[in-house]
Amino acid sequence: MTNTLMIEKAKTSKIKDVDFDNLSFGSIYTDHMLVCDYKDGEWKAPKIVPYQPLTLDPSAKIFHYGQSIFEGMKAYKDDEDNVWLFRPLENFKRLNKSAKRIAIPELPEEFFMEGLTTLLQIEKDWIPKNPGSSLYIRPFILASGTGFHASPADEYKFIIACAPSGAYFSGKVKVLIEQNYSRAANGGVGYAKAGGNYAGQFYPTQLAIEKGYNQVIWTDDNEHEYIEEAGAMNIFVRINDTLITGPTSDRILDGITRKSILDIAKDEGIATEVRKISVTEVVEAAKAGTLKEMFGAGTAAVVSPIASFGYKDNDYDLPDLADSYASRLKKRITDIQYNRAEDKFGWRFKVQ
Amino acid sequence: MTNTLMIEKAKTSKIKDVDFDNLSFGSIYTDHMLVCDYKDGEWKAPKIVPYQPLTLDPSAKIFHYGQSIFEGMKAYKDDEDNVWLFRPLENFKRLNKSAKRIAIPELPEEFFMEGLTTLLQIEKDWIPKNPGSSLYIRPFILASGTGFHASPADEYKFIIACAPSGAYFSGKVKVLIEQNYSRAANGGVGYAKAGGNYAGQFYPTQLAIEKGYNQVIWTDDNEHEYIEEAGAMNIFVRINDTLITGPTSDRILDGITRKSILDIAKDEGIATEVRKISVTEVVEAAKAGTLKEMFGAGTAAVVSPIASFGYKDNDYDLPDLADSYASRLKKRITDIQYNRAEDKFGWRFKVQ
Repeated sequence: MTNTLMIEKAKTSKIKDVDFDNLSFGSIYTDHMLVCDYKDGEWKAPKIVPYQPLTLDPSAKIFHYGQSIFEGMKAYKDDEDNVWLFRPLENFKRLNKSAKRIAIPELPEEFFMEGLTTLLQIEKDWIPKNPGSSLYIRPFILASGTGFHASPADEYKFIIACAPSGAYFSGKVKVLIEQNYSRAANGGVGYAKAGGNYAGQFYPTQLAIEKGYNQVIWTDDNEHEYIEEAGAMNIFVRINDTLITGPTSDRILDGITRKSILDIAKDEGIATEVRKISVTEVVEAAKAGTLKEMFGAGTAAVVSPIASFGYKDNDYDLPDLADSYASRLKKRITDIQYNRAEDKFGWRFKVQ
Repeated sequence: MTNTLMIEKAKTSKIKDVDFDNLSFGSIYTDHMLVCDYKDGEWKAPKIVPYQPLTLDPSAKIFHYGQSIFEGMKAYKDDEDNVWLFRPLENFKRLNKSAKRIAIPELPEEFFMEGLTTLLQIEKDWIPKNPGSSLYIRPFILASGTGFHASPADEYKFIIACAPSGAYFSGKVKVLIEQNYSRAANGGVGYAKAGGNYAGQFYPTQLAIEKGYNQVIWTDDNEHEYIEEAGAMNIFVRINDTLITGPTSDRILDGITRKSILDIAKDEGIATEVRKISVTEVVEAAKAGTLKEMFGAGTAAVVSPIASFGYKDNDYDLPDLADSYASRLKKRITDIQYNRAEDKFGWRFKVQ
């Protein structure tokens, strides 16, 4: 594929305007992007072009029927300026799993992997080295085919854009265990990184923010009794010394950080359980003092400790532990990601 | 508002290229569209401009988080070339109901109504007069604000585009009562005309089409035992001489055609019930010969008779009645829409 990947370089770079010491999350973009069109029944060869607006017909199905999916990844730079990805094939596989559920044609692996690594080589200088910073990578597919008929589009665009980014959350996180609204249905699209899953969370999250929380923890739509995920993160709970997370399902995203944290925890000798977690169990453990930690895990959020949770008009504070599982696990995973420690799992992927 | 509605006319018209005798549904567009931008915390004055592509940053939230909503309406032309809408304020109210749930700022009524009627006056020649044809109108709002952070956008575009259209379904419809996949969660966004609700239906609908059906009838996500809606239509069932449809809920769209059909049926002296319909009840009625009719109702589909339904590997045919409720109700509602009969309900709205 190398000889078919066309590259059109930007005439000037915006990099000098960027304050790398004060990066927000996902709000400034690098000089180039990868674009790959699906047309006439096939994915055409990808191109790298200057970062530029998209021009789409007002009847493009993305605007009407939410036919879009995405992935979130990060590129990390080590002290020798080597560039690393973390389990990129897992993102590729999940992109195609999402594609299938949203009736988007699956993408060839080489278009994704070679497009991504070539783009990162070109944008190497944009990868921040400050602690906690990284280059956030957003691969996404949108329906560009047209028509006011509720059916899959016949044309799509696969794009990779990159944003040098700081932390997703600043400080500890206050969450609300949701008792009215829901994120996903059994037999629905909750396990896919589909656009519509996110828009549906905004309003209930706004209501939670107005009450002083940062994020909602979603529960099952039938009884609101089982903890699912937090929209941008999977949720881990530590009761006594056991680390517990819910099983993945058709309602819950199969998080790459989630499964990596489980493997690292086992390697650390931490007792882990993957099983349904009831809200009652968490509240009882909080009251009994056996609920030691809760944290979220995701590519954007990395490992985000939860300071307190709200449930039915009560707030429950979590203890502030000196040597928490969250801090140990965050150090282990980021040390692997930034090439500061041995990678016994074979997760690191060198961009070259 | 009249003096603030800017109009930029198209230099040439595409109308001569259109074969009005062979219109498909929603695939060709008129010469103009209405565009209204939300920026700096307010909806700016709408403009009518030549129909043209939209230019959006690759990081616009519509591409990533499915933040979009829409409406479906039709304009009808009578024998004297008067132009009519059907209950347009109901569409406006529902648009804002959807907006609230998807965290999109609500739109002022006068921007919607005056924008719509002015656009229709300009596009009057595009409204087909052939039987079964109409000008399909698509008001929609998309998130144009940017950022790879899963939160509501700060900028939006409200657009109205129009497509002269023929029938949505050709002929009778075969449906599959879905037993694996789901459309909506309790506490979710099923009642909103949100983009993501449609993308999630495409794959299960494709599977149904491969088995020889045209459309899926969705059931509740918990037991798959209660009939909800058909994605582009609400569902009516006639058992003996009673016409039954499910209650609206947070999972089911509050269809304007649905509630109009209920009012017309009562006016016709037909016994109606609005209550949960179990799949078991429908299958038993089909076996007993008491299931006389099933039909879908929606703006695009109007009243679409269902010829048969599939359930758990069995197909059940519906009788072909000479004087069906579906045909009587379709005639009553389209006679009102096309100004061929008295409008005792006050639903017709003259565009002038």
